[in-house]
Amino acid sequence: MNLLAIGNALVDVLAHADDAFIAANGLDKGSMRLVDEAEADRLYGVMGPGVESSGGSAANTAVGVVSLGGSAQFVGRVRDDTLGQVFTHDIRAAGVVFECAPAPTGPPTGRCLVLVSPDAERTMSTFLGAASHLVPADVDPAAVAAAEITYLEGYLWDPSEAKEAFRKAMAAAHDAAGRVAFSLSDAFCVDRFRPEFVDLIDSGHVDILFANQAELCSLFEVDDLEVALKQLGQRVPIAAITVGAAGSVVVSADGVERVAARVLGGVVDTTGAGDLFAAGFLYGLTHGHDLTRCADLGSLAAAEIISHVGSRPEQSLRDLAVEAGLL
Amino acid sequence: MNLLAIGNALVDVLAHADDAFIAANGLDKGSMRLVDEAEADRLYGVMGPGVESSGGSAANTAVGVVSLGGSAQFVGRVRDDTLGQVFTHDIRAAGVVFECAPAPTGPPTGRCLVLVSPDAERTMSTFLGAASHLVPADVDPAAVAAAEITYLEGYLWDPSEAKEAFRKAMAAAHDAAGRVAFSLSDAFCVDRFRPEFVDLIDSGHVDILFANQAELCSLFEVDDLEVALKQLGQRVPIAAITVGAAGSVVVSADGVERVAARVLGGVVDTTGAGDLFAAGFLYGLTHGHDLTRCADLGSLAAAEIISHVGSRPEQSLRDLAVEAGLL
Repeated sequence: MNLLAIGNALVDVLAHADDAFIAANGLDKGSMRLVDEAEADRLYGVMGPGVESSGGSAANTAVGVVSLGGSAQFVGRVRDDTLGQVFTHDIRAAGVVFECAPAPTGPPTGRCLVLVSPDAERTMSTFLGAASHLVPADVDPAAVAAAEITYLEGYLWDPSEAKEAFRKAMAAAHDAAGRVAFSLSDAFCVDRFRPEFVDLIDSGHVDILFANQAELCSLFEVDDLEVALKQLGQRVPIAAITVGAAGSVVVSADGVERVAARVLGGVVDTTGAGDLFAAGFLYGLTHGHDLTRCADLGSLAAAEIISHVGSRPEQSLRDLAVEAGLL
Repeated sequence: MNLLAIGNALVDVLAHADDAFIAANGLDKGSMRLVDEAEADRLYGVMGPGVESSGGSAANTAVGVVSLGGSAQFVGRVRDDTLGQVFTHDIRAAGVVFECAPAPTGPPTGRCLVLVSPDAERTMSTFLGAASHLVPADVDPAAVAAAEITYLEGYLWDPSEAKEAFRKAMAAAHDAAGRVAFSLSDAFCVDRFRPEFVDLIDSGHVDILFANQAELCSLFEVDDLEVALKQLGQRVPIAAITVGAAGSVVVSADGVERVAARVLGGVVDTTGAGDLFAAGFLYGLTHGHDLTRCADLGSLAAAEIISHVGSRPEQSLRDLAVEAGLL
């Protein structure tokens, strides 16, 4: 298995919303906030018509790896309800191994209300529901050992038992000589767990770090990307930092390299851009490509996802990569 | 109220599928077939990852009329389950009046499994579920009387009680000096009810008839559109026949007029093209536009819907129509 991804099993509910609506509902444009079921219901009640599409950051990454021709397993929690069936169907139909049994009791399957602005930025309100009940027992050390890379989303650092599950997975991966990839997920998420994230990095638990510019700057509490990159230095073996339309910056023992973004049609909805960048990068890494090619595969996968509404690929990423001469 | 639309309350589950998959599952490409819950579950189990989006033919038309700036009410049946909540939220959030209480018992909310081919054609398998339980009591004569046009989808001719509800609505509309619009919906649907549909038309129950080329040809059991148009003649006051990329043909006392299609970006998914054509046409008719302009508004609304996956507009149709100089 190329990738074992552990994260929140969520169904996205995507709707268009203008800046006035974002402001009137007290949301920080471009961010992710956690909400309880009552607030999720309230916001759903006032937001526009939606489209439901399976999501979840690490789950999107797993789907992207398979769409490129790799293999992936996803670990995350749903309930035995309609949205849980939708999530399960979609991830399996995409070719990802997903073996977690749906919970027969407890909160409903989690959902992420995604408001897409006219400028294609997305603002997310997530009710984690069943996803937050991930426990260490959900992590099978044998499955982790069978994967080249174990990928964890920072979003799941919020529930404390899930955090323990992450620590267990990290230990199992390193015991089996696998690598651990970690995504900082969101600047506000970094803000909540800064010391823990820095400790994870400095204690050698993370081999591959994914972040966007805002998240890396938040991690080191600086405003300038160059300063943040300097702070990051060689603290992780590989770091891939996305910088929006400017593409990405890859930091490794080989130095700092900048790779351009790719464009496929217009920019309609940036939901999932970071997740799919990670998918392309990790596919490349597990298939013997150099870091520049890895980042370029990430750019291509991200370009596909932002060209339409939703965070799962609508075209075969492998076909696109072959067409672009990357595979 | 400009429009009272009565039809199947459905949530679409849209997935990409190639021709081999369509054939392997015994489906007629481009058609709609009714399936039971077991077959819907089987097909869902083997089809690719999906996107859920509220649909239903007449419901899509109602949403289109409101998106153009008109007013519309929808009558159709859902259950009190997750998909029923999704349908209810989406149609109300789109500005359509929807007052039917969800059924507390009986079959679940209906769904339409839509397989979108690489050439943008769609093939539908519909489990009507709660939608088929529409009964005459669901039709409020006062609501019908308050609408300028009552719009009925041929798809609902399958359940016999729903048919009675349709007859009640037609009578109420004419009692109140309103007009009745009827869509033939699907060539196979026409095949099931040909004598009844011809009788509806010839007995003066239909003032405005919508059909595509295949449906009109099926109605008169001929292969050639021109022959079908001759057969249609003046049997209904207004007929609007869509002919795909060739646009539409409007037949009225003023003669036969051909109106070109419109293009907005590429053709991604033809789901809802006929529904949105009807929306544009009916908006025009209830706002004093001539028949050519009505058909042109229909072309514009259809062009928007086929430019993306799903059968509800992603942009304001009014903005598009103003931009195009039609409003």
